[in-house]
Amino acid sequence: MRRPGAACARIGPVSAPLSTGLDPLIAARLKRDAAGLVTAVVQRHDNGEVLMVAWMNDAALARTLATGEATYWSRSRQELWVKGETSGHRQAVRSVALDCDGDALLIRVDQTGPACHTGSPTCFTDVLRPKPVERTG
Amino acid sequence: MRRPGAACARIGPVSAPLSTGLDPLIAARLKRDAAGLVTAVVQRHDNGEVLMVAWMNDAALARTLATGEATYWSRSRQELWVKGETSGHRQAVRSVALDCDGDALLIRVDQTGPACHTGSPTCFTDVLRPKPVERTG
Repeated sequence: MRRPGAACARIGPVSAPLSTGLDPLIAARLKRDAAGLVTAVVQRHDNGEVLMVAWMNDAALARTLATGEATYWSRSRQELWVKGETSGHRQAVRSVALDCDGDALLIRVDQTGPACHTGSPTCFTDVLRPKPVERTG
Repeated sequence: MRRPGAACARIGPVSAPLSTGLDPLIAARLKRDAAGLVTAVVQRHDNGEVLMVAWMNDAALARTLATGEATYWSRSRQELWVKGETSGHRQAVRSVALDCDGDALLIRVDQTGPACHTGSPTCFTDVLRPKPVERTG
């Protein structure tokens, strides 16, 4: 119920929400960059493959935690991006962990289809230094 | 041998090298942020654990590729940082891969000791959303 006399808050666009919905105890632990973002490393839950790196603002993290659907902040489109919303290549979130600095998240997911927009299972396909040949004996 | 008449180049600090030593073909594929950095995701080679996120400039990547010792750019100290140089918790690089956008690297390593400065094996210890209980049947 609205408090009598309270200002009537306008519903803003998702890119500039009045409230992100993120738990204040979590929000207080984040160390965001100048654009308000933290790094999100996305890893397959079943085989440990690192799939991609994306970015989250408070709203993206709040939505990810609340829905279990990996949601990022698109720096190119400047909008929330529910992974797979158009491609169908969704990421069901199994766990989310914050690093010791508070500026990076590890998102472990069940990936549907390829993670990369190129159609590759992972975005990390351009090998600069291959695994060296192992010598035994 | 120095070419006669060539200007005698002063040896600059590692933070502002005259040449980074990075292969120009690799340098051309990098998409750096405003600070000249790309994201480096570090993963254990043997068990797939994601250990940490760090940052690399061209010189850090060049040194990593040339020496096989993971070397980052310390944003707090503004200098090259050979991982484990003081702690002994070094990272022997097994492979380096660039992502489809050219702005993130996946560094797979053999980790000596804990990766995190807190003494934890990984920096991602602060679980925000635990793995949900699985139901079968």
